[in-house]
Amino acid sequence: VTEQSTRTAAIVVIGDEILAGRTADSNTPFLLSELRELGVDVRRILVVPDVIEDIVEAIRSTQPRHDLVFTSGGIGPTHDDVTMAAIARAMGRPLVRHARLVQLIEDLYEALGKKASEVHLRMAEVPEGTELVEAEGLRIPLLVLENIYILPGIPELFREKFLAIRERFRSAPFHVVRLFCKRGEGHLAPLMSHLVEEHPGLRVGSYPVLDDPGYRVQVILESKDRALLERACEALRARIGEEAIVRVERR
Amino acid sequence: VTEQSTRTAAIVVIGDEILAGRTADSNTPFLLSELRELGVDVRRILVVPDVIEDIVEAIRSTQPRHDLVFTSGGIGPTHDDVTMAAIARAMGRPLVRHARLVQLIEDLYEALGKKASEVHLRMAEVPEGTELVEAEGLRIPLLVLENIYILPGIPELFREKFLAIRERFRSAPFHVVRLFCKRGEGHLAPLMSHLVEEHPGLRVGSYPVLDDPGYRVQVILESKDRALLERACEALRARIGEEAIVRVERR
Repeated sequence: VTEQSTRTAAIVVIGDEILAGRTADSNTPFLLSELRELGVDVRRILVVPDVIEDIVEAIRSTQPRHDLVFTSGGIGPTHDDVTMAAIARAMGRPLVRHARLVQLIEDLYEALGKKASEVHLRMAEVPEGTELVEAEGLRIPLLVLENIYILPGIPELFREKFLAIRERFRSAPFHVVRLFCKRGEGHLAPLMSHLVEEHPGLRVGSYPVLDDPGYRVQVILESKDRALLERACEALRARIGEEAIVRVERR
Repeated sequence: VTEQSTRTAAIVVIGDEILAGRTADSNTPFLLSELRELGVDVRRILVVPDVIEDIVEAIRSTQPRHDLVFTSGGIGPTHDDVTMAAIARAMGRPLVRHARLVQLIEDLYEALGKKASEVHLRMAEVPEGTELVEAEGLRIPLLVLENIYILPGIPELFREKFLAIRERFRSAPFHVVRLFCKRGEGHLAPLMSHLVEEHPGLRVGSYPVLDDPGYRVQVILESKDRALLERACEALRARIGEEAIVRVERR
Protein backbone atom coordinates (compact mmCIF):
# COMPACT_ATOMS: atom_id res chain seq x y z
CA VAL A 1 0.00 0.00 0.00
CA THR A 2 1.42 3.37 -0.96
CA GLU A 3 0.28 6.92 -0.18
CA GLN A 4 -0.93 7.05 -3.79
CA SER A 5 -3.71 4.60 -3.05
CA THR A 6 -5.39 7.25 -0.92
CA ARG A 7 -8.22 9.26 -2.43
CA THR A 8 -8.48 12.78 -1.11
CA ALA A 9 -11.69 14.71 -0.57
CA ALA A 10 -12.96 18.17 0.28
CA ILE A 11 -16.35 19.05 1.74
CA VAL A 12 -18.07 22.32 0.81
CA VAL A 13 -21.02 23.19 3.04
CA ILE A 14 -23.33 25.92 1.78
CA GLY A 15 -25.74 27.71 4.06
CA ASP A 16 -26.34 30.91 6.00
CA GLU A 17 -28.13 28.89 8.69
CA ILE A 18 -24.93 26.99 9.52
CA LEU A 19 -22.79 30.14 9.73
CA ALA A 20 -25.45 31.84 11.86
CA GLY A 21 -25.18 28.99 14.38
CA ARG A 22 -28.93 28.39 13.97
CA THR A 23 -28.59 24.91 12.49
CA ALA A 24 -25.98 22.42 13.61
CA ASP A 25 -24.22 20.97 10.59
CA SER A 26 -24.82 17.24 11.01
CA ASN A 27 -23.90 16.41 7.42
CA THR A 28 -20.19 17.08 7.86
CA PRO A 29 -19.67 14.83 10.92
CA PHE A 30 -21.66 12.08 9.18
CA LEU A 31 -19.62 12.39 5.99
CA LEU A 32 -16.28 12.58 7.85
CA SER A 33 -17.06 9.39 9.69
CA GLU A 34 -18.25 7.60 6.53
CA LEU A 35 -15.32 8.71 4.38
CA ARG A 36 -12.83 7.76 7.04
CA GLU A 37 -14.30 4.30 7.29
CA LEU A 38 -14.07 4.06 3.49
CA GLY A 39 -10.37 4.97 3.53
CA VAL A 40 -10.89 8.41 1.94
CA ASP A 41 -8.65 11.19 3.24
CA VAL A 42 -10.64 14.41 3.81
CA ARG A 43 -8.17 17.30 3.49
CA ARG A 44 -10.41 20.36 3.72
CA ILE A 45 -13.82 21.54 4.87
CA LEU A 46 -15.22 24.89 3.77
CA VAL A 47 -18.43 26.45 5.02
CA VAL A 48 -19.69 29.39 2.95
CA PRO A 49 -22.89 31.47 2.83
CA ASP A 50 -25.64 31.33 0.18
CA VAL A 51 -23.68 33.71 -2.04
CA ILE A 52 -22.66 32.73 -5.56
CA GLU A 53 -19.18 34.31 -5.46
CA ASP A 54 -18.31 32.54 -2.22
CA ILE A 55 -19.43 29.16 -3.54
CA VAL A 56 -17.58 29.69 -6.83
CA GLU A 57 -14.40 30.40 -4.93
CA ALA A 58 -14.90 27.36 -2.69
CA ILE A 59 -15.33 25.08 -5.72
CA ARG A 60 -12.37 26.58 -7.59
CA SER A 61 -10.10 26.19 -4.57
CA THR A 62 -11.03 22.54 -3.97
CA GLN A 63 -12.15 20.86 -7.21
CA PRO A 64 -8.80 20.77 -9.06
CA ARG A 65 -6.86 19.62 -5.98
CA HIS A 66 -8.92 16.79 -4.56
CA ASP A 67 -10.09 13.49 -6.02
CA LEU A 68 -13.58 14.07 -4.67
CA VAL A 69 -15.58 17.15 -3.71
CA PHE A 70 -18.87 16.86 -1.85
CA THR A 71 -21.21 19.84 -1.62
CA SER A 72 -24.05 20.08 0.88
CA GLY A 73 -26.98 22.45 0.52
CA GLY A 74 -28.39 25.18 -1.70
CA ILE A 75 -30.08 23.03 -4.35
CA GLY A 76 -33.77 23.76 -3.70
CA PRO A 77 -36.07 25.99 -5.75
CA THR A 78 -35.80 29.31 -3.86
CA HIS A 79 -33.80 32.53 -4.26
CA ASP A 80 -31.20 31.37 -1.69
CA ASP A 81 -30.52 28.11 -3.57
CA VAL A 82 -27.59 29.17 -5.74
CA THR A 83 -25.30 26.13 -5.61
CA MET A 84 -26.07 24.98 -9.17
CA ALA A 85 -25.45 28.43 -10.65
CA ALA A 86 -22.22 28.69 -8.67
CA ILE A 87 -20.90 25.26 -9.69
CA ALA A 88 -21.76 26.05 -13.32
CA ARG A 89 -19.83 29.30 -13.13
CA ALA A 90 -16.88 27.76 -11.28
CA MET A 91 -16.58 25.00 -13.89
CA GLY A 92 -17.17 27.30 -16.89
CA ARG A 93 -20.35 25.59 -18.01
CA PRO A 94 -23.77 26.96 -18.86
CA LEU A 95 -26.75 26.15 -16.67
CA VAL A 96 -29.11 23.93 -18.70
CA ARG A 97 -32.49 22.35 -18.10
CA HIS A 98 -31.88 18.59 -17.90
CA ALA A 99 -34.65 16.72 -19.75
CA ARG A 100 -34.47 13.57 -17.65
CA LEU A 101 -34.56 15.62 -14.42
CA VAL A 102 -37.58 17.55 -15.69
CA GLN A 103 -39.31 14.21 -16.30
CA LEU A 104 -38.41 12.86 -12.86
CA ILE A 105 -39.61 16.01 -11.08
CA GLU A 106 -42.87 16.01 -13.04
CA ASP A 107 -43.41 12.33 -12.21
CA LEU A 108 -42.69 12.95 -8.52
CA TYR A 109 -45.30 15.73 -8.27
CA GLU A 110 -47.78 13.75 -10.32
CA ALA A 111 -47.45 10.85 -7.89
CA LEU A 112 -48.38 13.32 -5.12
CA GLY A 113 -51.46 14.35 -7.11
CA LYS A 114 -49.93 17.74 -7.95
CA LYS A 115 -48.44 19.42 -10.96
CA ALA A 116 -44.81 20.56 -10.97
CA SER A 117 -44.66 24.34 -11.39
CA GLU A 118 -41.97 26.45 -13.05
CA VAL A 119 -40.54 26.98 -9.56
CA HIS A 120 -40.15 23.23 -9.02
CA LEU A 121 -38.64 22.78 -12.48
CA ARG A 122 -35.95 25.26 -11.53
CA MET A 123 -34.47 22.25 -9.69
CA ALA A 124 -33.88 20.63 -13.10
CA GLU A 125 -31.41 23.38 -14.05
CA VAL A 126 -27.91 22.00 -13.70
CA PRO A 127 -24.45 22.70 -15.09
CA GLU A 128 -24.07 21.26 -18.60
CA GLY A 129 -22.51 17.81 -18.43
CA THR A 130 -23.97 16.92 -15.02
CA GLU A 131 -24.55 13.17 -14.77
CA LEU A 132 -27.50 11.60 -13.02
CA VAL A 133 -26.42 8.66 -10.90
CA GLU A 134 -29.42 6.45 -10.35
CA ALA A 135 -29.31 3.99 -7.47
CA GLU A 136 -31.72 1.74 -5.66
CA GLY A 137 -33.94 3.60 -3.23
CA LEU A 138 -33.35 7.06 -4.74
CA ARG A 139 -36.43 8.84 -6.05
CA ILE A 140 -34.27 11.59 -7.49
CA PRO A 141 -30.81 10.52 -8.68
CA LEU A 142 -27.60 11.93 -7.38
CA LEU A 143 -26.09 14.78 -9.40
CA VAL A 144 -22.42 14.53 -10.27
CA LEU A 145 -20.30 16.92 -12.33
CA GLU A 146 -16.80 15.56 -12.96
CA ASN A 147 -15.55 14.90 -9.40
CA ILE A 148 -18.18 17.06 -7.66
CA TYR A 149 -20.96 15.21 -5.84
CA ILE A 150 -23.82 17.65 -5.35
CA LEU A 151 -25.81 16.69 -2.25
CA PRO A 152 -28.89 18.25 -0.66
CA GLY A 153 -28.60 20.04 2.70
CA ILE A 154 -31.56 18.33 4.38
CA PRO A 155 -29.86 15.68 6.54
CA GLU A 156 -32.29 12.83 5.75
CA LEU A 157 -31.80 13.35 2.00
CA PHE A 158 -28.06 13.93 2.33
CA ARG A 159 -27.65 10.56 4.05
CA GLU A 160 -30.00 8.72 1.74
CA LYS A 161 -28.12 9.94 -1.34
CA PHE A 162 -24.65 9.34 0.06
CA LEU A 163 -25.44 5.87 1.39
CA ALA A 164 -26.89 4.84 -1.98
CA ILE A 165 -23.46 5.21 -3.60
CA ARG A 166 -20.99 4.99 -0.71
CA GLU A 167 -19.22 1.84 -1.91
CA ARG A 168 -17.93 3.57 -5.03
CA PHE A 169 -15.63 5.62 -2.78
CA ARG A 170 -14.02 2.68 -0.97
CA SER A 171 -10.24 2.88 -0.89
CA ALA A 172 -7.48 1.14 1.12
CA PRO A 173 -8.25 1.42 4.85
CA PHE A 174 -6.42 3.56 7.38
CA HIS A 175 -4.71 1.71 10.21
CA VAL A 176 -4.47 3.41 13.59
CA VAL A 177 -2.68 2.76 16.88
CA ARG A 178 -3.30 4.88 19.97
CA LEU A 179 -0.82 5.03 22.84
CA PHE A 180 -2.08 6.49 26.12
CA CYS A 181 0.96 7.89 27.89
CA LYS A 182 1.74 9.08 31.40
CA ARG A 183 4.48 11.38 30.11
CA GLY A 184 3.79 14.95 29.02
CA GLU A 185 4.32 16.51 25.60
CA GLY A 186 7.57 18.10 26.77
CA HIS A 187 9.04 14.62 27.06
CA LEU A 188 7.29 13.10 24.05
CA ALA A 189 7.87 15.90 21.52
CA PRO A 190 11.42 15.01 20.46
CA LEU A 191 10.56 11.28 20.33
CA MET A 192 7.64 12.00 18.00
CA SER A 193 9.63 14.37 15.77
CA HIS A 194 12.29 11.72 15.37
CA LEU A 195 9.64 9.06 14.60
CA VAL A 196 8.03 11.18 11.88
CA GLU A 197 11.41 11.81 10.23
CA GLU A 198 12.26 8.11 10.25
CA HIS A 199 8.92 6.93 8.84
CA PRO A 200 7.71 8.75 5.72
CA GLY A 201 4.04 7.96 5.17
CA LEU A 202 3.34 7.86 8.92
CA ARG A 203 1.13 10.45 10.58
CA VAL A 204 1.65 11.14 14.25
CA GLY A 205 -0.72 13.25 16.32
CA SER A 206 -0.40 14.20 19.95
CA TYR A 207 -3.46 15.01 22.08
CA PRO A 208 -2.97 16.14 25.67
CA VAL A 209 -5.85 15.86 28.14
CA LEU A 210 -6.28 18.16 31.11
CA ASP A 211 -8.44 16.26 33.54
CA ASP A 212 -7.76 12.55 33.22
CA PRO A 213 -5.80 11.15 36.16
CA GLY A 214 -4.93 7.99 34.18
CA TYR A 215 -2.87 9.47 31.35
CA ARG A 216 -1.57 12.79 30.06
CA VAL A 217 -1.21 12.46 26.31
CA GLN A 218 -2.77 10.28 23.65
CA VAL A 219 -0.38 9.67 20.76
CA ILE A 220 -2.07 8.54 17.57
CA LEU A 221 -0.06 6.78 14.87
CA GLU A 222 -1.71 6.33 11.53
CA SER A 223 -0.84 4.91 8.13
CA LYS A 224 -2.34 2.99 5.24
CA ASP A 225 0.74 0.75 5.41
CA ARG A 226 0.18 -1.65 8.29
CA ALA A 227 3.75 -2.96 8.39
CA LEU A 228 5.14 0.58 8.54
CA LEU A 229 2.69 1.41 11.31
CA GLU A 230 3.72 -1.61 13.38
CA ARG A 231 7.44 -0.86 12.99
CA ALA A 232 6.87 2.74 14.03
CA CYS A 233 4.73 1.68 16.97
CA GLU A 234 7.41 -0.74 18.21
CA ALA A 235 10.08 1.94 17.91
CA LEU A 236 8.05 4.54 19.79
CA ARG A 237 7.02 2.15 22.58
CA ALA A 238 10.63 1.22 23.15
CA ARG A 239 11.66 4.89 23.36
CA ILE A 240 8.84 5.97 25.64
CA GLY A 241 9.26 2.90 27.85
CA GLU A 242 6.48 0.43 28.64
CA GLU A 243 6.16 1.72 32.22
CA ALA A 244 4.95 5.09 30.88
CA ILE A 245 2.31 3.58 28.54
CA VAL A 246 -1.05 3.07 30.23
CA ARG A 247 -2.67 1.24 27.32
CA VAL A 248 -2.59 0.68 23.58
CA GLU A 249 -5.65 0.68 21.33
CA ARG A 250 -5.94 -0.25 17.67
CA ARG A 251 -8.52 1.89 15.81
CA VAL B 1 -28.19 50.80 11.79
CA THR B 2 -26.49 50.12 8.46
CA GLU B 3 -24.86 47.00 7.04
CA GLN B 4 -21.53 48.72 7.71
CA SER B 5 -21.99 48.35 11.46
CA THR B 6 -21.53 44.60 11.06
CA ARG B 7 -18.19 43.08 11.81
CA THR B 8 -17.37 40.03 9.74
CA ALA B 9 -15.41 37.01 10.90
CA ALA B 10 -13.81 33.82 9.62
CA ILE B 11 -12.95 30.73 11.63
CA VAL B 12 -9.91 28.61 10.74
CA VAL B 13 -9.83 25.23 12.46
CA ILE B 14 -6.53 23.36 12.35
CA GLY B 15 -6.30 19.67 13.08
CA ASP B 16 -5.96 16.24 11.50
CA GLU B 17 -8.13 14.79 14.29
CA ILE B 18 -11.12 16.86 13.14
CA LEU B 19 -10.73 15.93 9.47
CA ALA B 20 -10.32 12.27 10.43
CA GLY B 21 -13.68 12.40 12.19
CA ARG B 22 -11.98 11.22 15.39
CA THR B 23 -12.68 14.37 17.38
CA ALA B 24 -15.91 16.33 17.09
CA ASP B 25 -15.13 20.01 16.60
CA SER B 26 -16.95 21.62 19.53
CA ASN B 27 -15.05 24.91 19.26
CA THR B 28 -16.76 26.00 16.05
CA PRO B 29 -20.38 25.55 17.24
CA PHE B 30 -19.48 27.36 20.49
CA LEU B 31 -17.85 30.24 18.63
CA LEU B 32 -20.67 30.50 16.06
CA SER B 33 -23.22 30.79 18.82
CA GLU B 34 -21.16 33.33 20.78
CA LEU B 35 -20.34 35.50 17.77
CA ARG B 36 -23.94 35.50 16.60
CA GLU B 37 -25.10 36.65 20.00
CA LEU B 38 -22.45 39.39 19.85
CA GLY B 39 -23.72 40.62 16.46
CA VAL B 40 -20.64 39.40 14.54
CA ASP B 41 -21.30 38.00 11.06
CA VAL B 42 -19.31 34.79 10.46
CA ARG B 43 -18.79 34.49 6.69
CA ARG B 44 -16.50 31.50 6.37
CA ILE B 45 -15.27 28.41 8.19
CA LEU B 46 -12.22 26.53 7.01
CA VAL B 47 -10.94 23.26 8.44
CA VAL B 48 -7.41 22.32 7.40
CA PRO B 49 -4.88 19.65 8.42
CA ASP B 50 -1.71 20.18 10.49
CA VAL B 51 0.21 21.17 7.37
CA ILE B 52 1.95 24.55 7.13
CA GLU B 53 1.04 25.22 3.48
CA ASP B 54 -2.65 24.55 4.10
CA ILE B 55 -2.77 26.84 7.12
CA VAL B 56 -0.86 29.58 5.27
CA GLU B 57 -3.41 29.45 2.47
CA ALA B 58 -6.31 29.50 4.92
CA ILE B 59 -4.93 32.62 6.64
CA ARG B 60 -4.14 34.38 3.35
CA SER B 61 -7.64 33.71 2.03
CA THR B 62 -9.41 35.00 5.14
CA GLN B 63 -7.27 37.58 6.98
CA PRO B 64 -7.44 40.45 4.45
CA ARG B 65 -11.18 40.03 3.84
CA HIS B 66 -12.66 39.75 7.31
CA ASP B 67 -12.60 42.04 10.31
CA LEU B 68 -11.77 39.15 12.60
CA VAL B 69 -10.11 35.77 12.10
CA PHE B 70 -10.14 33.15 14.83
CA THR B 71 -7.83 30.16 14.65
CA SER B 72 -8.32 27.01 16.71
CA GLY B 73 -5.58 24.48 17.36
CA GLY B 74 -1.99 23.67 16.53
CA ILE B 75 -0.23 25.85 19.13
CA GLY B 76 1.30 23.24 21.45
CA PRO B 77 4.96 22.17 21.63
CA THR B 78 5.00 19.14 19.32
CA HIS B 79 5.93 18.48 15.68
CA ASP B 80 2.27 18.70 14.58
CA ASP B 81 1.81 22.16 16.14
CA VAL B 82 2.61 24.37 13.17
CA THR B 83 0.03 27.15 13.45
CA MET B 84 2.50 29.80 14.65
CA ALA B 85 4.97 29.06 11.87
CA ALA B 86 2.13 29.15 9.34
CA ILE B 87 0.68 32.46 10.56
CA ALA B 88 4.17 33.97 10.55
CA ARG B 89 4.70 32.88 6.97
CA ALA B 90 1.24 33.97 5.83
CA MET B 91 1.76 37.42 7.33
CA GLY B 92 5.36 37.78 6.14
CA ARG B 93 6.85 37.98 9.63
CA PRO B 94 9.70 36.12 11.26
CA LEU B 95 9.01 33.72 14.13
CA VAL B 96 10.56 35.21 17.28
CA ARG B 97 10.89 34.11 20.90
CA HIS B 98 8.68 36.46 22.92
CA ALA B 99 10.44 37.44 26.15
CA ARG B 100 7.27 37.97 28.17
CA LEU B 101 5.85 34.62 27.02
CA VAL B 102 9.10 32.89 27.96
CA GLN B 103 8.77 34.41 31.43
CA LEU B 104 5.12 33.37 31.77
CA ILE B 105 5.82 29.79 30.67
CA GLU B 106 8.79 29.52 33.03
CA ASP B 107 6.65 30.85 35.90
CA LEU B 108 3.85 28.42 35.09
CA TYR B 109 6.17 25.40 35.22
CA GLU B 110 7.92 26.70 38.33
CA ALA B 111 4.53 26.95 40.07
CA LEU B 112 4.06 23.26 39.23
CA GLY B 113 7.45 22.47 40.77
CA LYS B 114 8.97 21.79 37.37
CA LYS B 115 11.37 23.48 35.05
CA ALA B 116 10.27 24.58 31.57
CA SER B 117 12.33 22.74 28.96
CA GLU B 118 13.37 23.89 25.50
CA VAL B 119 10.34 21.96 24.19
CA HIS B 120 7.97 23.97 26.39
CA LEU B 121 9.66 27.22 25.42
CA ARG B 122 8.90 26.45 21.79
CA MET B 123 5.42 27.69 22.74
CA ALA B 124 6.93 31.16 23.25
CA GLU B 125 7.84 31.37 19.55
CA VAL B 126 5.31 33.62 17.84
CA PRO B 127 5.13 35.79 14.71
CA GLU B 128 6.91 39.12 15.25
CA GLY B 129 4.42 41.75 16.37
CA THR B 130 2.11 39.32 18.17
CA GLU B 131 0.39 41.06 21.09
CA LEU B 132 -0.33 39.41 24.40
CA VAL B 133 -3.82 40.25 25.60
CA GLU B 134 -3.93 39.73 29.35
CA ALA B 135 -7.32 39.31 30.98
CA GLU B 136 -8.64 38.27 34.34
CA GLY B 137 -8.57 34.55 34.85
CA LEU B 138 -6.06 33.81 32.10
CA ARG B 139 -2.83 32.17 33.19
CA ILE B 140 -1.41 32.54 29.71
CA PRO B 141 -2.59 35.62 27.77
CA LEU B 142 -4.38 35.47 24.47
CA LEU B 143 -2.19 35.85 21.39
CA VAL B 144 -3.32 38.33 18.75
CA LEU B 145 -1.59 39.32 15.52
CA GLU B 146 -3.35 42.19 13.76
CA ASN B 147 -6.92 40.84 13.38
CA ILE B 148 -6.00 37.18 13.99
CA TYR B 149 -7.00 35.72 17.36
CA ILE B 150 -4.90 32.63 17.93
CA LEU B 151 -6.78 30.20 20.17
CA PRO B 152 -5.85 26.77 21.51
CA GLY B 153 -7.64 23.68 20.24
CA ILE B 154 -8.37 22.12 23.64
CA PRO B 155 -12.04 23.06 24.19
CA GLU B 156 -11.71 24.07 27.86
CA LEU B 157 -8.87 26.46 27.03
CA PHE B 158 -10.53 27.70 23.85
CA ARG B 159 -13.62 28.73 25.81
CA GLU B 160 -11.68 30.20 28.71
CA LYS B 161 -9.65 32.41 26.40
CA PHE B 162 -12.56 33.51 24.22
CA LEU B 163 -14.86 34.26 27.15
CA ALA B 164 -12.17 36.39 28.80
CA ILE B 165 -12.32 38.88 25.92
CA ARG B 166 -15.70 38.28 24.30
CA GLU B 167 -17.10 41.76 25.00
CA ARG B 168 -14.52 43.40 22.78
CA PHE B 169 -16.29 41.85 19.77
CA ARG B 170 -19.78 43.13 20.55
CA SER B 171 -21.46 44.78 17.59
CA ALA B 172 -25.06 45.80 16.72
CA PRO B 173 -27.37 42.80 17.26
CA PHE B 174 -29.08 40.76 14.57
CA HIS B 175 -32.88 40.78 14.59
CA VAL B 176 -34.69 37.68 13.42
CA VAL B 177 -38.28 36.72 12.64
CA ARG B 178 -39.29 33.15 11.81
CA LEU B 179 -42.50 32.35 9.97
CA PHE B 180 -43.69 28.73 10.07
CA CYS B 181 -45.75 28.20 6.91
CA LYS B 182 -48.15 25.54 5.69
CA ARG B 183 -47.36 26.39 2.05
CA GLY B 184 -44.50 24.71 0.20
CA GLU B 185 -41.45 26.32 -1.38
CA GLY B 186 -43.07 26.18 -4.81
CA HIS B 187 -45.62 28.70 -3.60
CA LEU B 188 -43.28 30.74 -1.38
CA ALA B 189 -40.31 31.07 -3.77
CA PRO B 190 -41.58 34.00 -5.91
CA LEU B 191 -42.85 35.83 -2.79
CA MET B 192 -39.44 35.58 -1.16
CA SER B 193 -37.53 36.59 -4.31
CA HIS B 194 -39.70 39.68 -4.56
CA LEU B 195 -39.19 40.48 -0.87
CA VAL B 196 -35.40 40.25 -1.14
CA GLU B 197 -35.39 42.58 -4.15
CA GLU B 198 -37.55 45.14 -2.35
CA HIS B 199 -35.53 45.15 0.88
CA PRO B 200 -31.77 45.58 0.47
CA GLY B 201 -30.08 44.64 3.74
CA LEU B 202 -32.60 41.91 4.46
CA ARG B 203 -31.62 38.25 4.46
CA VAL B 204 -34.28 35.67 3.76
CA GLY B 205 -33.74 31.96 4.23
CA SER B 206 -36.14 29.14 3.49
CA TYR B 207 -35.95 25.81 5.34
CA PRO B 208 -38.33 23.01 4.36
CA VAL B 209 -38.99 20.17 6.80
CA LEU B 210 -39.92 16.66 5.73
CA ASP B 211 -41.62 15.12 8.71
CA ASP B 212 -43.48 17.82 10.62
CA PRO B 213 -47.24 17.59 10.18
CA GLY B 214 -47.68 21.15 11.53
CA TYR B 215 -45.83 23.17 8.90
CA ARG B 216 -43.86 22.69 5.67
CA VAL B 217 -41.39 25.56 5.48
CA GLN B 218 -39.70 27.84 7.98
CA VAL B 219 -38.95 31.25 6.49
CA ILE B 220 -36.31 33.21 8.40
CA LEU B 221 -36.05 36.98 7.93
CA GLU B 222 -33.01 38.67 9.35
CA SER B 223 -31.52 42.15 9.52
CA LYS B 224 -29.60 44.46 11.78
CA ASP B 225 -32.19 47.11 10.97
CA ARG B 226 -35.25 46.33 13.08
CA ALA B 227 -37.59 48.72 11.26
CA LEU B 228 -36.65 47.25 7.89
CA LEU B 229 -37.19 43.77 9.29
CA GLU B 230 -40.67 44.61 10.60
CA ARG B 231 -41.71 46.22 7.30
CA ALA B 232 -40.51 43.18 5.38
CA CYS B 233 -42.24 40.83 7.80
CA GLU B 234 -45.58 42.69 7.43
CA ALA B 235 -45.29 42.60 3.65
CA LEU B 236 -44.51 38.88 3.52
CA ARG B 237 -47.27 37.93 5.97
CA ALA B 238 -49.81 39.82 3.88
CA ARG B 239 -48.67 38.06 0.71
CA ILE B 240 -48.56 34.56 2.20
CA GLY B 241 -51.89 35.05 3.97
CA GLU B 242 -52.36 34.64 7.74
CA GLU B 243 -54.31 31.38 7.25
CA ALA B 244 -51.14 29.76 5.88
CA ILE B 245 -48.92 30.90 8.76
CA VAL B 246 -48.87 28.49 11.70
CA ARG B 247 -46.82 30.66 14.03
CA VAL B 248 -44.33 33.52 14.19
CA GLU B 249 -41.23 33.58 16.41
CA ARG B 250 -38.79 36.37 17.09
CA ARG B 251 -35.19 35.18 17.57
